[in-house]
Amino acid sequence: MKTLTLLTDFGTQDAYVGIMKGVITTIAPTANIIDISHNIPPQDIITARFQLMTAFPYFPEGTIHVVVVDPGVGSNRRAIALQFPSGYIIVPDNGIIGGVLGLENPIATVELNDPLYWLNPQPSNTFHGRDIFAPVAAHLANGIPMTALGTTIDWQSLVQMPIPTAQWSREKRWEGCIQAIDHFGNLITNLRGDLVTNQNWSVDLGEHNITGHTTYANARHKEPVGLVSSDNWIEIAIRNGNAEEYFTATIGDKVKLTFESSKKVDS
Amino acid sequence: MKTLTLLTDFGTQDAYVGIMKGVITTIAPTANIIDISHNIPPQDIITARFQLMTAFPYFPEGTIHVVVVDPGVGSNRRAIALQFPSGYIIVPDNGIIGGVLGLENPIATVELNDPLYWLNPQPSNTFHGRDIFAPVAAHLANGIPMTALGTTIDWQSLVQMPIPTAQWSREKRWEGCIQAIDHFGNLITNLRGDLVTNQNWSVDLGEHNITGHTTYANARHKEPVGLVSSDNWIEIAIRNGNAEEYFTATIGDKVKLTFESSKKVDS
Amino acid sequence: MKTLTLLTDFGTQDAYVGIMKGVITTIAPTANIIDISHNIPPQDIITARFQLMTAFPYFPEGTIHVVVVDPGVGSNRRAIALQFPSGYIIVPDNGIIGGVLGLENPIATVELNDPLYWLNPQPSNTFHGRDIFAPVAAHLANGIPMTALGTTIDWQSLVQMPIPTAQWSREKRWEGCIQAIDHFGNLITNLRGDLVTNQNWSVDLGEHNITGHTTYANARHKEPVGLVSSDNWIEIAIRNGNAEEYFTATIGDKVKLTFESSKKVDS
Repeated sequence: MKTLTLLTDFGTQDAYVGIMKGVITTIAPTANIIDISHNIPPQDIITARFQLMTAFPYFPEGTIHVVVVDPGVGSNRRAIALQFPSGYIIVPDNGIIGGVLGLENPIATVELNDPLYWLNPQPSNTFHGRDIFAPVAAHLANGIPMTALGTTIDWQSLVQMPIPTAQWSREKRWEGCIQAIDHFGNLITNLRGDLVTNQNWSVDLGEHNITGHTTYANARHKEPVGLVSSDNWIEIAIRNGNAEEYFTATIGDKVKLTFESSKKVDS
Repeated sequence: MKTLTLLTDFGTQDAYVGIMKGVITTIAPTANIIDISHNIPPQDIITARFQLMTAFPYFPEGTIHVVVVDPGVGSNRRAIALQFPSGYIIVPDNGIIGGVLGLENPIATVELNDPLYWLNPQPSNTFHGRDIFAPVAAHLANGIPMTALGTTIDWQSLVQMPIPTAQWSREKRWEGCIQAIDHFGNLITNLRGDLVTNQNWSVDLGEHNITGHTTYANARHKEPVGLVSSDNWIEIAIRNGNAEEYFTATIGDKVKLTFESSKKVDS
Repeated sequence: MKTLTLLTDFGTQDAYVGIMKGVITTIAPTANIIDISHNIPPQDIITARFQLMTAFPYFPEGTIHVVVVDPGVGSNRRAIALQFPSGYIIVPDNGIIGGVLGLENPIATVELNDPLYWLNPQPSNTFHGRDIFAPVAAHLANGIPMTALGTTIDWQSLVQMPIPTAQWSREKRWEGCIQAIDHFGNLITNLRGDLVTNQNWSVDLGEHNITGHTTYANARHKEPVGLVSSDNWIEIAIRNGNAEEYFTATIGDKVKLTFESSKKVDS
């Protein structure tokens, strides 16, 4: 039983996601379909990139990940499939794949231009999730080889998304930004957690200085707290609260890391 | 492995949907359950009708669709099951089935009045999804024949929902209305896309005249665009934007189709 | 094929739930995973307790329920697994289990302190759903015995949640409160429905007196109605409407039951 995942901005109100699953199940009846998220904000490829990169390492080898956040649907943007050591990703060529490319190098990359594996030879101009991505994923799950799905391309030619990275600044400190905000309002920066291992640290966000701890439980009720997230990013949270609301923070807001003099705060 | 789908207005906050799946899995342990949507607005049978009609063609033959949007639960409205060439539908008799009846004629229709296939002989007055629809669907998945589930009835006797249809008006043009609004704010009319094949066209919505294109990509960023949707309806969208907000449009708003003189706009 | 359920406050925007399913599927590839809810309000253990208690009876014997609403993650709160006659529950020891303990007594209870069955020996401080609860559940689905997962403990030692219960008051009437509000705005009290069997009854909520009926259909359009819910609680609803909005009610609001003199209202 092959595992497929879906990551889209289709929401859960309309039948779009169900239709993709219907198409997959018609072609590959024993596929095990897992939802990663369908509540990526509409056309938000930056968030899709982050969620795909975060989820990718936790699935069985050979899992087929289908990502449809696709502001360029109907244009000449390419639809692509990539084979990695850990699994496959089927996605529009719009930069979403960039985060995973930082984790693993692809073994093979194809442009999905063989209509034989589409729902029909004349896809709609608005719903390639149903007409191209879902049926291609199902055929791949059935054992059709990657290279049959279209023309092999060089992954170095893929569209790049300009993502700010953490920098060592003139002030001799690490500076980064908020790259994601989760359901709990936790602010996930693009500063790696490794930077603060065995250090006393704090992080500046606007006017605020937030002390680093090893766990929520070291902060007081409703107190701001810096943490290393479960995916090794420095994160700003409010214990039993919502940091997004507390700081009225948004993605892209600048954060600066400071090391304190003495040793490890929590013992 | 039999495929079942669920389409409800139960939301995803409460355990109601999970409970229906628990009941199905207890009776039919290998059933493959797919969610179409649980975010139909409460008791909105018009939207349920549209989503069911839209999703129905994309599932494997023999799929059992369970629809529970049921403002009449506890009254004497009938619970029914219909067998179509493409699959089965289990639904309250409140007009939701109307859209699918425009696609296929039923082979058999029964009223679900044999308590043998209910969760227990005394169903609650408020949760027939759990007590009648889910267990009946699971027994059908297990191979119990349709006709065992209750009394055969004439599908011509089913409750009709009064749905406005597109009309050829005195002004010698097609007039219709918005029949659905999706998660992206796209306005889906009840005018068939076939009407505009190989034509230059535009559509009037209130004071606005919106030009027809073949794809979002032919419009400029944040520009209104008329399109044929992936299910062959004329649709009004904003490229990279939300037409529902832009036009403050609602379901039922009138739309009028105009053909322009010259040939196909996009080449 | 073993059934597992998930009940969390993780929402459906982030990849967290998908990641838990990836971890489970990696360890137990044939597990059948059913969502109960991921929209428990953040850290709301009272609602989690209610939903778990409500859903628990409707799943196949041996189902493994995984509950992650965990305000104490990273503190020294215990992670526990309980075996009941009807199935297994894996949950933080924070009182959520209390509702189910009112239905069945556990056969065995363990503290999940053997890292052999965790994702890795050094779990994160913020995502035990991924690092402890999901992998332990998957190993249990694979047939690892309960007692291998950690130290056996006395279930009488588990954390209790102080939940108000219905009381027979000095005014010689039953008094309780709203214990849950569902997606439809129905107000579910903690007064058992058995109290009003074959009685004429009404319920007081603030200034309002609401007449008891046997079904929504006995009330007029938009009229308040008292009912026995599908899980045998006295419930306050608005026919074709939303009682939460109508009464601006919240969880904890007091309700009082009154018996009327004559016999059964609905006939």
